[in-house]
Amino acid sequence: MEARAKRYTSIGREAAKPGVVNVNPIQRGGLLTAEARKALQEFGDGYSMCDFCLKGRIDRIKKPPVAGFLQDLASFLGMDVVRLTNRCRDAIFVALMGLKRSRGSSVVVVDSNAHYSTYLAAEAAGLEVVEVPNTGYPEFKVRLDAYQRAIEEVEEERGEPPVAAILTHVDPHYGNLSDPRPVAEICHEHGVPFLLNAAYTAGVMPINGKELGIDILTSSGHKSWASSGPVGILALSSKLAEDVLVRSERFPNKELYLLGCPVLGAALATLMASFPAVLERVKRWPEEVEKARWLVSELERIEGVRQLGVRPKEHTLICLETPGFHEVAKKHKRRGFFLYEELKKRGIVGVQPGLTRRIKLNTYGLSWREVEHVARAFQEIAEKYGLEVR
Amino acid sequence: MEARAKRYTSIGREAAKPGVVNVNPIQRGGLLTAEARKALQEFGDGYSMCDFCLKGRIDRIKKPPVAGFLQDLASFLGMDVVRLTNRCRDAIFVALMGLKRSRGSSVVVVDSNAHYSTYLAAEAAGLEVVEVPNTGYPEFKVRLDAYQRAIEEVEEERGEPPVAAILTHVDPHYGNLSDPRPVAEICHEHGVPFLLNAAYTAGVMPINGKELGIDILTSSGHKSWASSGPVGILALSSKLAEDVLVRSERFPNKELYLLGCPVLGAALATLMASFPAVLERVKRWPEEVEKARWLVSELERIEGVRQLGVRPKEHTLICLETPGFHEVAKKHKRRGFFLYEELKKRGIVGVQPGLTRRIKLNTYGLSWREVEHVARAFQEIAEKYGLEVR
Repeated sequence: MEARAKRYTSIGREAAKPGVVNVNPIQRGGLLTAEARKALQEFGDGYSMCDFCLKGRIDRIKKPPVAGFLQDLASFLGMDVVRLTNRCRDAIFVALMGLKRSRGSSVVVVDSNAHYSTYLAAEAAGLEVVEVPNTGYPEFKVRLDAYQRAIEEVEEERGEPPVAAILTHVDPHYGNLSDPRPVAEICHEHGVPFLLNAAYTAGVMPINGKELGIDILTSSGHKSWASSGPVGILALSSKLAEDVLVRSERFPNKELYLLGCPVLGAALATLMASFPAVLERVKRWPEEVEKARWLVSELERIEGVRQLGVRPKEHTLICLETPGFHEVAKKHKRRGFFLYEELKKRGIVGVQPGLTRRIKLNTYGLSWREVEHVARAFQEIAEKYGLEVR
Repeated sequence: MEARAKRYTSIGREAAKPGVVNVNPIQRGGLLTAEARKALQEFGDGYSMCDFCLKGRIDRIKKPPVAGFLQDLASFLGMDVVRLTNRCRDAIFVALMGLKRSRGSSVVVVDSNAHYSTYLAAEAAGLEVVEVPNTGYPEFKVRLDAYQRAIEEVEEERGEPPVAAILTHVDPHYGNLSDPRPVAEICHEHGVPFLLNAAYTAGVMPINGKELGIDILTSSGHKSWASSGPVGILALSSKLAEDVLVRSERFPNKELYLLGCPVLGAALATLMASFPAVLERVKRWPEEVEKARWLVSELERIEGVRQLGVRPKEHTLICLETPGFHEVAKKHKRRGFFLYEELKKRGIVGVQPGLTRRIKLNTYGLSWREVEHVARAFQEIAEKYGLEVR
């Protein structure tokens, strides 16, 4: 095994090479800032944030200023209390476990565009999911008004409201942005806690939980906060904080469903180091959306290409149906991999290898020059394989 | 907030300065190797291991060779199947949730030296804990024979065996090493799954799950595998793998209590990069123990200092009662912090700031020269404050 194991020391990464343009749909908002890269070196060892832990609680550490940072993070999100978790899905799981215990209900309402991990968090917490439909092909818009009916159905059939209603702020399939306000209103009328999963939004676009009526906001450091991660963000209104942050009976200093401290050496250090850059970058969101829209218009010049989800784009995560490329793949000796490989030749990575029927990409943080390069590359590849480019 | 946030970009770390000797009890086994530091740069971005994910399962990724690595890791531990989790405690939690579901029991047997997070994992999983006592001051040795009685009591009172029995291989309080074999035997006689928490052992000392009769082995990458983490290791015998790795009903490709893929960019990359060094270093374990024993003998020359836990040391985690230093602290203007500060002046960090009654330190991976430096430093400080050094 020793001989074979040697190879693990020299694993490399195409996407990390200088000059490569990475359009991976889940990676753009997580790419490290220069400050985070420095923090990564300084705090690379696992327990590096715990040197001056005096109270057995990472959220109370003052050196480095973790406690102050979490307070700033809460203010930035327009929420009252923040805890860090392992991932965004763990933040949802922790919230559901706490609410289930305090409210005794067994159902949660979830939008049908939610990430698979939202469904897993509900299932692992022992909750039944009632789904809010979307409008289907080609827009897949979540029917926000249907939250009312979903909640009322649960109340009628179970005699109690659902433990919470979850809305995915921007979904991972189509990059649709759903307005939380009408859902917040419905939830509050029915006394149902409203959880907004902002994995794709908080950290890249401005968001204020208080203004939007959010009780629980979850997000993902490695998805949208330029953190190495894994790290999830669980932001709570003070009204619900106690219900969610259940204390352990045996160790009352520890928060039960967090399983005590998350170990957040490099993950937390990079989240902190990138925070000032995040405060700045959310102000540039309108231009980020503009780049996404421009790329869509350029790619739709290719035969058969059509953007799925709500038009025009309100987020940088783009889903396209690409039947022309799919036809090419059928006859290509590399099958679906041809598209990945053609893009790679042009210095572009991040479109899932093998896929050609539908593809996803994300323009967040790309320069105009890079977005133009991506557009030209797709158009060139289309022309090379005989697809019309209008 | 922008102005205040700037400080988060420049947080530094004493313990990371060149030449500083870090004896932090939880950090020695996690310090990165040179190979891991390189991997940290290459795979610093959060989803860096997922570039070639074709099946939506990180444990099946072939490029980088994650799937092969997990198989090698299982072989190295003498186990059949490995999954990675967020932390060691999450590995315990996942195992307990799975076993509770498949076995329908509501009690778990745990040794009284277990880490607080083991108790939290049990409590969060909705299990009652039946505790196996230890011998108390000064040895605090877990009474391995008492597992028999604990299991039989559960069987008699509940009419069903406990969901599992957990033994902490080396505990975090005294660094006592408990022999898993007698417990494994008792468990197997009663048909109870045996979980060994090897957070402080696997990755620093040799361990073979099959030879020891272990059904579930958990460990911590950032504690004992020179990984940046956070990352937990959940190693299973094939007999129990299905019971623990419950599939989601809605997403059968995903393992429910893992909540799908753990996101393991830098954490996994550093775990892999350090693996060849780990294979080598476990062979040097006898000398590591020798250094710990030597340091204990030198520190016990100081008035009042006495090693707690089993003697002689069988692990590098050392707990000392230090009443002499505690007396000094009472009169010192810096109170308990004097010891931390005196050590720091001598280039030593990692003894918890403020503590003087009992202290913990870990010699793992220190050179003889560094261990000698630590011994001299304590002796010098003792003499400075009028404590006798024999």
